[in-house]
Amino acid sequence: MRRDELSKVILPEDRMPKFWYNVQADMPNPLEPGLNPQTHKPLTPADLEPIFARELIAQEVSTERFIEIPKAVRQLYKQFRPSPLFRAHNLEKALDTTCRIYYKYEGVSPVGSHKLNSALPQVYFNKMQGIKRITTETGAGQWGTALSLACKQFGLEAMVYMVKVSYQQKPYRRSIMELYGGSCIPSPSTLTASGRRAIEENPDTPGTLAIAISEAVEDALSRDDTNYSLGSVLNHVCLHQTIIGQEVKLQMEMVDDFPDIVVGCCGGGSNMAGIALPFIPDKLAGKKIRLVAVEPAACPTLTKGKFAYDYGDSVGLTPMLKMYTLGHGFTPSGIHAGGLRYHGASPLLSQLYHDALIEAVAVKQNQTFEAAMLFARTESIVPAPESSHAIRAAIDEALKAKEEGVSKTIVFNLSGHGQLDLFSYDKFLAGQTEDIELSKEEIEESLKYLPEV
Amino acid sequence: MRRDELSKVILPEDRMPKFWYNVQADMPNPLEPGLNPQTHKPLTPADLEPIFARELIAQEVSTERFIEIPKAVRQLYKQFRPSPLFRAHNLEKALDTTCRIYYKYEGVSPVGSHKLNSALPQVYFNKMQGIKRITTETGAGQWGTALSLACKQFGLEAMVYMVKVSYQQKPYRRSIMELYGGSCIPSPSTLTASGRRAIEENPDTPGTLAIAISEAVEDALSRDDTNYSLGSVLNHVCLHQTIIGQEVKLQMEMVDDFPDIVVGCCGGGSNMAGIALPFIPDKLAGKKIRLVAVEPAACPTLTKGKFAYDYGDSVGLTPMLKMYTLGHGFTPSGIHAGGLRYHGASPLLSQLYHDALIEAVAVKQNQTFEAAMLFARTESIVPAPESSHAIRAAIDEALKAKEEGVSKTIVFNLSGHGQLDLFSYDKFLAGQTEDIELSKEEIEESLKYLPEV
Repeated sequence: MRRDELSKVILPEDRMPKFWYNVQADMPNPLEPGLNPQTHKPLTPADLEPIFARELIAQEVSTERFIEIPKAVRQLYKQFRPSPLFRAHNLEKALDTTCRIYYKYEGVSPVGSHKLNSALPQVYFNKMQGIKRITTETGAGQWGTALSLACKQFGLEAMVYMVKVSYQQKPYRRSIMELYGGSCIPSPSTLTASGRRAIEENPDTPGTLAIAISEAVEDALSRDDTNYSLGSVLNHVCLHQTIIGQEVKLQMEMVDDFPDIVVGCCGGGSNMAGIALPFIPDKLAGKKIRLVAVEPAACPTLTKGKFAYDYGDSVGLTPMLKMYTLGHGFTPSGIHAGGLRYHGASPLLSQLYHDALIEAVAVKQNQTFEAAMLFARTESIVPAPESSHAIRAAIDEALKAKEEGVSKTIVFNLSGHGQLDLFSYDKFLAGQTEDIELSKEEIEESLKYLPEV
Repeated sequence: MRRDELSKVILPEDRMPKFWYNVQADMPNPLEPGLNPQTHKPLTPADLEPIFARELIAQEVSTERFIEIPKAVRQLYKQFRPSPLFRAHNLEKALDTTCRIYYKYEGVSPVGSHKLNSALPQVYFNKMQGIKRITTETGAGQWGTALSLACKQFGLEAMVYMVKVSYQQKPYRRSIMELYGGSCIPSPSTLTASGRRAIEENPDTPGTLAIAISEAVEDALSRDDTNYSLGSVLNHVCLHQTIIGQEVKLQMEMVDDFPDIVVGCCGGGSNMAGIALPFIPDKLAGKKIRLVAVEPAACPTLTKGKFAYDYGDSVGLTPMLKMYTLGHGFTPSGIHAGGLRYHGASPLLSQLYHDALIEAVAVKQNQTFEAAMLFARTESIVPAPESSHAIRAAIDEALKAKEEGVSKTIVFNLSGHGQLDLFSYDKFLAGQTEDIELSKEEIEESLKYLPEV
């Protein structure tokens, strides 16, 4: 295949990776352990078994470099994987750059985002140990959709607590979850003590991912047949997503290329981890490659947060994890990239960021929409607001290279399409999207409430 | 590749067809000529040049078997083509059938449907002769979206007249057209005499495709730099869509299979033509293959209409074409498959249907939604309401084969996804979709107003 003529690189189905890559095998500094929220002692598997499948708990702490993808999961992956790697010829032309820009397109999955990569194995491992029902939270709705579909495919029930503001702004996300057989209710709800408490404290709360997590965990704790599932942050979720970056490496090889810069948007961190972690061994081996996480200026966890132990949810039901955090009580402003509105970042990415193996930048909302518009009008695909953060940074890197008179190979993760986010584009086109940037004072205030360890 | 293990058949990019297949070279009975709406004389190229590009007019009447796809169009096709052919393993299991069911998935195009296959060459040929602006109509919005994107890619202006009821029901279709740089207004509008007349006759009209076509044609006739573009019905549109069926043939070959039954939904006819026409030579050569067009019981053009000359629009600005029609004044009920709400069927398909080379069935709305739900919950993809008609018929064929104790190979065209149609699924899930079937009397009344020739 001649590198500069192709439009997309398709990896043959039989070359789809059969193993997930576990970066814990290669990290120069291992993760600090998660802590039990009551005892503040390092977590034991027994702490997690009330809500997680044993196999997933094992993956959470494994240091095996490669973990096999079960055959049943691979079979379902093949409905949409390997996903295409596109060369952004038209975007390059529009930018008048000599950089080569590629994007890995995860929007080809039937739910329109990368989230199914982890929903399928999570449901599979739960089914294997006899679980009948899974609870979860969802922000913008991508994760809840993926979990609903995965549950349907393996014959389990799905119960999704959806952040209220998104539930109201994106009613069709609920429709699609129900279409896939899942149940979806706005959070905070009156079904759980956590939800009732949140409503009592602030009857008009727009909800947060942290509150929805409390509700879903509480629900799972209350029933023996039910486990809980998280769509980002945790090690096993990042692990499942590494199929993305592994495919990218094989696809780049097919066109005899290798990235100088790998870019992903970053909320909890799953899609960034997915594309970036498989490049960590190359980086450790001395390759000059930059791994760039892009977060919203309105929720700048890595760039402005603190590397500390914090809860994953609002009320302290989840383990405490060592991660970059803005504080578990932080309510991010209602930016349209709902999937990036989370106070913490994955412990794996946090540790790697702390060790300078990955970088992070924060970008403002209108810049991301401008990048998304240029992308849609050149590369045809309407990107999700979350993914548009990666597009923004990829464009900025190409423009910087042009200024410096150099050519770079840039690859970014287009983690999902935006066909269910047209409401947000409407607002942008009407000049009604704000550039919210969190102030130093707000961050300091929010960080006051970190748990003491 | 072992046929019964694969999930999807991917045709390598370099095997993408370089020619469209023109069925006019092989039809046992040639098409009857289109007629000038004023003189009722056979159309000359000069009649069409005020609104169509010369190259497209030539394609309209060509009897060359293969017509080359321009390189610039092929380059843009490669952003989403060849499209995958999926084996519907999970659906087969749910139906407990020994039939092999495949579907060609055109929803991978960035606009989510097959419409871009014709939008790109139409805009290209117009650009080649210096046209700066293109008008069109759109029903559900798929065609208007495709034309807006194609115009953006070739640097032309797009002006879309969207059927009012759809404009109101599907506001995000307008958003996506604007995102791609197109202009979109509800039809009937006050911008044209045709629109003003329609409003005067019935201020509350929901609009029809036929009225929107009148508006778009009138607009194009009024400006020298502007041509008109149609998303279905015409021969050159069907021609462009044949890339679908040609790919299917190559993909079936890759797995050493061949269809007994080919299914497509049918409104104007473009996606049915796309998948079915390339199989006409096989049928003529004696292969036992059935080509089945599926239409809504609420708009049963082939199964209940009359094979006669009729206008393509409501007021008689377009040429008269010999086709199956329910009468150009017919206002189809507001079924959710907006793309199938058209009074006529493509002259090519009409002639082939008349000659018993293709078949047709009509299905009711709720049956199509039931099929769509089963499909989404087994094959994961949420189908467009239009495409769900094809799914319904494919399922029915599989069930019939099971009853008869035979195994068939069935392939259908999944012409688009339904992620922008969740409003319609909501209505179905709430039990609010009707089974409208057109009565004999209504059809007779509507057919009274056919033009005399």
